[in-house]
Amino acid sequence: MTGPQDTRGAGADPAVPRSLEHPLPAGMRDLLPEEARERRERARKLLDRFALHGYSLVTPPAFEFAEVLERGLGTLDAAEVLRFVEPESGEVAALRPDMTPQIARMIATRLRDRPPPMRLAYEGTVLRRRAGRARKERQMPQAGVELAGVAGPAGDLELLELAAGAARAAGLDRFTIDLGDAGVVRALLAGVAPEAQARLSEALGRKDEGEIAEACAQARPACSEALLALPSLHGARDALVEGVARLATTPARAGAERLLALFDAAVARGLGAHLVADLGEVRGFAYYTGPIFHVFAPGTGAALASGGRYDELLARFGVPMPAAGFAFDLDRLGEALRAAGAVEAGPMRVVVVVADDRNRDPGRGAQDDPRVVSLRARGVAAVAVTGEPAARAYARAWGFTHVMVGEEPASV
Amino acid sequence: MTGPQDTRGAGADPAVPRSLEHPLPAGMRDLLPEEARERRERARKLLDRFALHGYSLVTPPAFEFAEVLERGLGTLDAAEVLRFVEPESGEVAALRPDMTPQIARMIATRLRDRPPPMRLAYEGTVLRRRAGRARKERQMPQAGVELAGVAGPAGDLELLELAAGAARAAGLDRFTIDLGDAGVVRALLAGVAPEAQARLSEALGRKDEGEIAEACAQARPACSEALLALPSLHGARDALVEGVARLATTPARAGAERLLALFDAAVARGLGAHLVADLGEVRGFAYYTGPIFHVFAPGTGAALASGGRYDELLARFGVPMPAAGFAFDLDRLGEALRAAGAVEAGPMRVVVVVADDRNRDPGRGAQDDPRVVSLRARGVAAVAVTGEPAARAYARAWGFTHVMVGEEPASV
Repeated sequence: MTGPQDTRGAGADPAVPRSLEHPLPAGMRDLLPEEARERRERARKLLDRFALHGYSLVTPPAFEFAEVLERGLGTLDAAEVLRFVEPESGEVAALRPDMTPQIARMIATRLRDRPPPMRLAYEGTVLRRRAGRARKERQMPQAGVELAGVAGPAGDLELLELAAGAARAAGLDRFTIDLGDAGVVRALLAGVAPEAQARLSEALGRKDEGEIAEACAQARPACSEALLALPSLHGARDALVEGVARLATTPARAGAERLLALFDAAVARGLGAHLVADLGEVRGFAYYTGPIFHVFAPGTGAALASGGRYDELLARFGVPMPAAGFAFDLDRLGEALRAAGAVEAGPMRVVVVVADDRNRDPGRGAQDDPRVVSLRARGVAAVAVTGEPAARAYARAWGFTHVMVGEEPASV
Repeated sequence: MTGPQDTRGAGADPAVPRSLEHPLPAGMRDLLPEEARERRERARKLLDRFALHGYSLVTPPAFEFAEVLERGLGTLDAAEVLRFVEPESGEVAALRPDMTPQIARMIATRLRDRPPPMRLAYEGTVLRRRAGRARKERQMPQAGVELAGVAGPAGDLELLELAAGAARAAGLDRFTIDLGDAGVVRALLAGVAPEAQARLSEALGRKDEGEIAEACAQARPACSEALLALPSLHGARDALVEGVARLATTPARAGAERLLALFDAAVARGLGAHLVADLGEVRGFAYYTGPIFHVFAPGTGAALASGGRYDELLARFGVPMPAAGFAFDLDRLGEALRAAGAVEAGPMRVVVVVADDRNRDPGRGAQDDPRVVSLRARGVAAVAVTGEPAARAYARAWGFTHVMVGEEPASV
């Protein structure tokens, strides 16, 4: 069985016929109790932080017409979108691979008469097909914001601070923010033949200096020296200052100077301990029009949040307006929190041991035990289980924190 | 434009080309800020209540193989399911029309080694195609529970109490619980020719006595007198007692007696003010194996929660176990709460008026106003807007509750 994921338990009998195996599409998965609770809690902390900064929650539908979604696609390849024919209209619909185009559509339609700046927050799962040999989808639970109508550094700084504050609110203290600018690589690649651009940006993404040199040598016209230097222009402020000097006579000058100014302003606002500058940043550079940032932390290889400025996006929906935003990947954030030992213990949950009372009034079940009723009245989750051994096993299996034999709950 | 819903604002220019219209598939819609916040809050209150009673949150994926989902379909027609070919496996997948089959699959796989009873809660959107002339989908946001491993009245009462408690926790005091039993209609229809059963159950659903009589007259063998009496056997306990007497010599006796016993036990547990008995209940009777209930309230025509017992469902997934559950429709619950005037005001949100300061340090934006910082530090959502008229307009448009001109916030 290569395609579908085997969701049978560890004790599954290999002789069980396929009809009883209940496979899931590759890449789809269930969240079991502990994980589902933790993810919901993470999302709540992020959304509470976004709300504190004046961002309003909106909720777009889970799928819509592919043509609308793809008008706003940026960092994604169209091959990553899962499409299907919507049976009622006969039109092609798509499961959203990104919520930003949906928010852009909302701004262009039902929100267009509200005054900017528009501060919008969202939470939801996006679905992406993954190219390459491992043919499967990936579902990504996200929580993010869009800030439309605030141009330049004022908007960029608001988002950088909000992203850092949200990471902290979720419980993460150690993280880095990789800060780049889409204008740098774009300006330098503009001088290179189109066929070499894809190869170069891919090599830049890996900071593969040999491949960059080779691709540059074959490119017509050959790349600027600056393009060859990009992989080394990342790190602390020093690297950024050196980069600005080296790019001073190139078309990338404006982007580099903008990045340095934003870096300094972010340091002035207390983000210095988290910042790493990267003049060679290419992730999503075709989509973003200015600053780009990615949040990293120990415990997860991929970014746990990504964002930037895309001032041309809303024009595609007929409402030209500067815009920027970011989204957290709730699963990656969870990996980082677990690695940091920052996953909060869940609330107290109690299994109350009750006697096996065969004479119990059938209208009064075990859940009517006064201790259960009293715990719940105090806001503590509680259930009754008959007999102490069964109660202990139940508590362990279902993540209850306490077992109550007499009148006092004791830790499991 | 007949199919897609027009999502343009009221001021949309009819001359705008279709490419700028951004339609949504029929039946899909966006939740704007106020509505999105309220719905999230409703879901939180229900899930908190479920957690208090020991139910653990689980989260299944948004789509999975149609064959798995449809194995557990009960109250739904297969025509209500939106299917598509999953591109990686080539198998038919479906957007879930109901989360119960997904929870059943989880119980049969990754949860099968945990001890029962399994108390599971979920929240998510299901998608149903709507038959008939209005060809569109309908997305329904749900929050519900499944209780697996508790048979009979103990489980039924736990769920009835939990549903009533959850409705109250969400802010609803006036509601009725229509209580029926699938065994009653099923036992009576068993004696009727299969071709008459569908027509009869449809007529029973509408309590259309004329149609029932006509269908019965044509059925072979003709219906029992009892079937003709069902539409009148609903209401308070008296109607139920009368029904038990009238059905005493029919195959429906067991179901009717079970319903009376459950009704009395629920009254004993304080639910009497909400209960209505209905011996002619047919909604979902093909799926449910015992008690069925629907919660109704003024302000919405459809049930705001539905549930019942389906002791045969888990066997279809290879783990035979009694099971019952219910789900709230978060949109219908919202309609009922609005009709009852029970929608809580949102939290305090403040627009702080700042002066137009062209000399402001570019590293310090308007959002750095100490009043904004101080409000946020106290957990109050705040944003700065330049100038009082703009601040007032902004507050009104975006649902802020207060505007702060000097040092004290005043209501909008």
